[in-house]
Amino acid sequence: MPRPKRARQCPIDYALSIFGDRWTLLILRDLLLAGKRHYRELVASNERIATNVLAARLRKLEAAGLVLRRTEPNDKRQVFYVVTDKALDLVPTLLEISRWSAKYDRNTGAPPGLIARFDDDRARLVADLVQAARARQA
Amino acid sequence: MPRPKRARQCPIDYALSIFGDRWTLLILRDLLLAGKRHYRELVASNERIATNVLAARLRKLEAAGLVLRRTEPNDKRQVFYVVTDKALDLVPTLLEISRWSAKYDRNTGAPPGLIARFDDDRARLVADLVQAARARQA
Repeated sequence: MPRPKRARQCPIDYALSIFGDRWTLLILRDLLLAGKRHYRELVASNERIATNVLAARLRKLEAAGLVLRRTEPNDKRQVFYVVTDKALDLVPTLLEISRWSAKYDRNTGAPPGLIARFDDDRARLVADLVQAARARQA
Repeated sequence: MPRPKRARQCPIDYALSIFGDRWTLLILRDLLLAGKRHYRELVASNERIATNVLAARLRKLEAAGLVLRRTEPNDKRQVFYVVTDKALDLVPTLLEISRWSAKYDRNTGAPPGLIARFDDDRARLVADLVQAARARQA
């Protein structure tokens, strides 16, 4: 079914309609950069997300085509998530946000090595992180 | 007074604590990319922000050191905002978000010329936009 026509809209507003709340971007961080895949790993984030919020945000990410929900073949109760290319394309955005925090928040937890690599060769770091995320899916 | 010590925290969480809601990032878009400065211009955004929400978010941005509140010398009721370097350093993040939307939202309002310039020479586009924003402050 064709998507209904919308008026042309601001690209930032479109993006925020998908990940414009704190929790969704933290979930994407866990999936894209921290190597988490399983629901149980996502529940155990440092920020202690509530399980109902986590479940709702994962459904939203699935509906928006950023994650695919899967179950372990030998234990259907074990749910995990696979990130799509649409999600992987957010790695540069997450890195820019991290770079900004590293500059302005002296308590930032950004690994210094990551920031140095970002400043040295941004394109290479993005490619490496995307490759690593893809490898974890295989 | 020294800032109280905090535990090291995720850099993305720090950033989201400042602009991790839809409205704040849209206000920053208006100030950094759309050339708006006056309160009355910000009220007139396409997304029709409520005035109490706008006022609260501007206070938050001021407290976080992203904007400075000013009044016109010849009419003190006319309030406008000046962006700081800390805000200008978010231009790359806003551009990355726009780039992502341009790829995945066929109704995006991102100017095609902007996307082409982004893909062609990202660093140059960031520098040009920051320079233009600074020029508007003068």
